[in-house]
Amino acid sequence: MKGQFIVFEGIEGGGKSSQMAKTAQWLSQGGLGKPVEVLQTREPGGTELGQKLRSLLLSDHSLDLNYRSELLLYAADRAQHVKEVLKPALEEGKIILCDRYIHSTTAYQGYGRGLDLKLIQQLNAIASDGLESDLTLWLDVAIETGLERVKKRGKRDRLEKADIAFHQRVRQGYEDLANQFPQQILRIDANQNEPAVQSQIQTQLKRLVISH
Amino acid sequence: MKGQFIVFEGIEGGGKSSQMAKTAQWLSQGGLGKPVEVLQTREPGGTELGQKLRSLLLSDHSLDLNYRSELLLYAADRAQHVKEVLKPALEEGKIILCDRYIHSTTAYQGYGRGLDLKLIQQLNAIASDGLESDLTLWLDVAIETGLERVKKRGKRDRLEKADIAFHQRVRQGYEDLANQFPQQILRIDANQNEPAVQSQIQTQLKRLVISH
Repeated sequence: MKGQFIVFEGIEGGGKSSQMAKTAQWLSQGGLGKPVEVLQTREPGGTELGQKLRSLLLSDHSLDLNYRSELLLYAADRAQHVKEVLKPALEEGKIILCDRYIHSTTAYQGYGRGLDLKLIQQLNAIASDGLESDLTLWLDVAIETGLERVKKRGKRDRLEKADIAFHQRVRQGYEDLANQFPQQILRIDANQNEPAVQSQIQTQLKRLVISH
Repeated sequence: MKGQFIVFEGIEGGGKSSQMAKTAQWLSQGGLGKPVEVLQTREPGGTELGQKLRSLLLSDHSLDLNYRSELLLYAADRAQHVKEVLKPALEEGKIILCDRYIHSTTAYQGYGRGLDLKLIQQLNAIASDGLESDLTLWLDVAIETGLERVKKRGKRDRLEKADIAFHQRVRQGYEDLANQFPQQILRIDANQNEPAVQSQIQTQLKRLVISH
């Protein structure tokens, strides 16, 4: 099996992180027939530069970032991630599991913040240098359920503070993207319990292998 | 006199910083007839976000930034600077003196690094949100003279470490831009001594005022 680039997407509280970790364990223990080398990474924050940018973007509330700067910082994080981590790992035949990628930018900055979608498309193309995922798993959770889960974690960051209406727009963004790219983006019902969600993910990954 | 946006451009060692400071003093002491309010700023680093990005871009050599990330970080710095500093100051009728702006990106990242000029033009447009300078003073110094001056200052940063050939390409970038935008970009002979360079700058600024 050649390298595969698998992205986990969705609003807060959909269980991306824990599902990604479970998926990595399953894959490296031979879930697809034989053990494979798995790289877990994320955006923003998948490189040393990215860690610094992630802290600017999600933790440093004093900066009062305007939306364009925010968009450009996500793009800078991505450009470094693609070049330094993603492309080399794919060349080495690894399976990459990535927490967020270009569709997050479209959903959050485009649908959520209301930035021009064409502008975002341009920037996604520049930042990704043309690299697209082999499969994007959209963990779709009801907004109230997602935000309730986030609240229980006691976690707060810039995006999680935003309001219900914002998250509704973001969710709509994912839905539109999934309709636009049905071959690439698969919806996972993330309202179910953890084992049931993991089971859906494993089913989709088995299909991906067969289709390649 | 309404707000004016004046940019100082050129390769290292052309005397941008000291000429800008002298120009600010001259303007605020009534060089153009009556004292005016002057704002001195720079890119990268004209905002709190910008200071952090400037440190990533120019000081943190461990990061091994790829050229696209570098380009996008400069753009993020600019977007924040335009929104937070430049546009508000112009609305207040201030005269802005800015050390570097969009033409630096074209000269350094485009001509110097060899990144696609159309890509840079797109990013400059996104980051500047359409804001162009009223006047750009290109302090043109011979490369050897410029680098010799930098060496004497004992200063080193990422760009200043780069080689002669790189600076030749950057200087060529400025020359091409000056030919392309003769109404906006004026060449100042920065090989002369400081008072002579300042005198040229003051002459150009007096013309700018008359033409407005």
